[in-house]
Amino acid sequence: MSPAYLDHAATTPMLPEAIEAMTQQLGRVGNASSLHAAGRQARRVVEESREAIADALGARPSEVVFTAGGTEADNLAIKGLYWAREPRRRILISAIEHHGALDPARWLADRQGAEVELLEVDSHGRVHPDTLRAAIERDPESVALVSVMWANNEVGTVQPIRVLASIARDHGIPFHTDAVQAVGVLPVSFADSGAQALTLSGHKVGGPMGVGALLLERGVTPVSVLHGGGQERDVRSGTLDAPAIAGLAAAVEAAAKGQQAQAIRLSALRDDLIRRVRQAVPDVILNGDPVDRLPGNAHFSFPGCEGDALLMLLDAKGVECSTGSACSAGVAQPSHVLLAMGAPAAAARGSLRFTLGHTSTQDDVDRLIEVLPAAVERARRAGLS
Amino acid sequence: MSPAYLDHAATTPMLPEAIEAMTQQLGRVGNASSLHAAGRQARRVVEESREAIADALGARPSEVVFTAGGTEADNLAIKGLYWAREPRRRILISAIEHHGALDPARWLADRQGAEVELLEVDSHGRVHPDTLRAAIERDPESVALVSVMWANNEVGTVQPIRVLASIARDHGIPFHTDAVQAVGVLPVSFADSGAQALTLSGHKVGGPMGVGALLLERGVTPVSVLHGGGQERDVRSGTLDAPAIAGLAAAVEAAAKGQQAQAIRLSALRDDLIRRVRQAVPDVILNGDPVDRLPGNAHFSFPGCEGDALLMLLDAKGVECSTGSACSAGVAQPSHVLLAMGAPAAAARGSLRFTLGHTSTQDDVDRLIEVLPAAVERARRAGLS
Repeated sequence: MSPAYLDHAATTPMLPEAIEAMTQQLGRVGNASSLHAAGRQARRVVEESREAIADALGARPSEVVFTAGGTEADNLAIKGLYWAREPRRRILISAIEHHGALDPARWLADRQGAEVELLEVDSHGRVHPDTLRAAIERDPESVALVSVMWANNEVGTVQPIRVLASIARDHGIPFHTDAVQAVGVLPVSFADSGAQALTLSGHKVGGPMGVGALLLERGVTPVSVLHGGGQERDVRSGTLDAPAIAGLAAAVEAAAKGQQAQAIRLSALRDDLIRRVRQAVPDVILNGDPVDRLPGNAHFSFPGCEGDALLMLLDAKGVECSTGSACSAGVAQPSHVLLAMGAPAAAARGSLRFTLGHTSTQDDVDRLIEVLPAAVERARRAGLS
Repeated sequence: MSPAYLDHAATTPMLPEAIEAMTQQLGRVGNASSLHAAGRQARRVVEESREAIADALGARPSEVVFTAGGTEADNLAIKGLYWAREPRRRILISAIEHHGALDPARWLADRQGAEVELLEVDSHGRVHPDTLRAAIERDPESVALVSVMWANNEVGTVQPIRVLASIARDHGIPFHTDAVQAVGVLPVSFADSGAQALTLSGHKVGGPMGVGALLLERGVTPVSVLHGGGQERDVRSGTLDAPAIAGLAAAVEAAAKGQQAQAIRLSALRDDLIRRVRQAVPDVILNGDPVDRLPGNAHFSFPGCEGDALLMLLDAKGVECSTGSACSAGVAQPSHVLLAMGAPAAAARGSLRFTLGHTSTQDDVDRLIEVLPAAVERARRAGLS
């Protein structure tokens, strides 16, 4: 029996459309910067992909900059906009960002003179518009950029992005949102969001790893993070990865088209999971916003458990989940997201994330519920000893 | 009839082994940072790939840092070593580097206080050891790093890398080499080269686009260019692209194993191409080192022609080649490589590069020779009008 994969927020299987589009191009030769027929074929694939992604996400094709993934897109947005707006020094960024956004900001503070201000969140993980407004109004002229993620990768909380973006826009400050967890999962329109920069990642939306994009409003030009051949209007150099870009476009298109139906299906499945986990482990705590959360996300603290131990016990029984962000898995530190939400360190350490996606079924939830009570009991005994 | 593809230096078709290894992993799910079984499978693929690449290139597995390609690896080496060695300000870099190395150095000069000194080359495109030695000895303490490519992507000239690296090493200065064109084509051993950092790219060696690596000698730690989840021992963040990494390893392994036989076959084919091009167009000029050049590289100036025009005429007849680096194709500027070699601007503009690779056959050369004389004649008439 294959495991119940409840870790779609870490990476989700590629959609058949994406595998097909990508492997087709893998068998061809052509550098999209070459002038001959083979190069033009690759260029065509890239430009058609750009149009498809723009269409699906309410952007213009010229607003799509391809990158090697979400982390690179976040680095480009944050470092690139910071450098472009020097000598402005302040970076306003939510305390619960993915490390792909937080760490570039911290590096700018360590090495490049930036002043990073973490925007606090409430106990559900929401950034209040007043928090952002107050931070900006302290000295609007000194703010280089604002960055708040569309939806949190750990606890699934969805931010009031349009409201936040409009506050920044009112002051002429670029607003970046890491929408890695939102694209294909929530209805995402770049134009409607009001953000000037938006990060997406291939492998979180049913596309390939190693590819992503930064959407950039016309006229917003970050300083490059990767310099070289001048691809992507000199914003991001490096050979355009036509096969992965084709796979990304196929995935974004398919995910956006099926978004509403999938969201309804996954919310129902997720609500069933939450209800039954609460029945099975009555003292469990659900983290994140109870309403404004990603359809496939359920995140719990299991009092008295170490998250890693519980994860391994579940894994041994064929249930795959995460203690938080895959990107910092293995690091035995309590989640900065839960701490920012005011959770005690012990609760933060005893947390597990279950995330559903396009291949998830009722069977996956059933399997979890079948093995969870015994695993929690064992983890608690281990915690006591 | 499919075109004669004579542009392998821009990108070469994926080897069947690489397609197989990559597509196998595309059908699986798993983030190499996840702790569960699916994550561990992806991690295993990454670590086995790391070992295979290290084995093939005379490096230790712990010296392999995966990146999204050659440009990113060059950026990491040059910016990362510069920042790591501040306040040293001088970057010594050959005048004929790929833009992926030159442009990060120039950006450091523009924005980060670096002093970039271009190492001149002779008329064959070689950096003389004395040139490097003199530049270092002017003030060894102020040199942050040296960067000289293993083999030039345009004219194919191979540098005396071991000698150059040992000069830098004698002064305790890190030496980076962009070996994108050399890996799989020449015998490359990282340990024997004496370099502290070496760039390779997937799609130049029969692997996928969107992946590459920076080999880093133990103890040499650049500052990161992409910050985030802390993958690759915190040198390079971003989800490890297990499918592409598997494809890269399969390609590097296969190319290294077949390197000698392929070099002999391609040199013979290339020599035949050069001989017959000279017969067909008697006033043609061969650029680059006549002896120390890449086995698959032939680069000519066609007096009285515009390179772009000649390229398009050949393309129309089913022969695909390049005017220089694909990465700056479309830019109507004479090649900085040829200018640094002392070629007049007119000759630099009238240049074409023909590059052979693993799928090249005698038929490809025959096709070129068949259509070249008429194309040159037409390009010359166009140039005169």
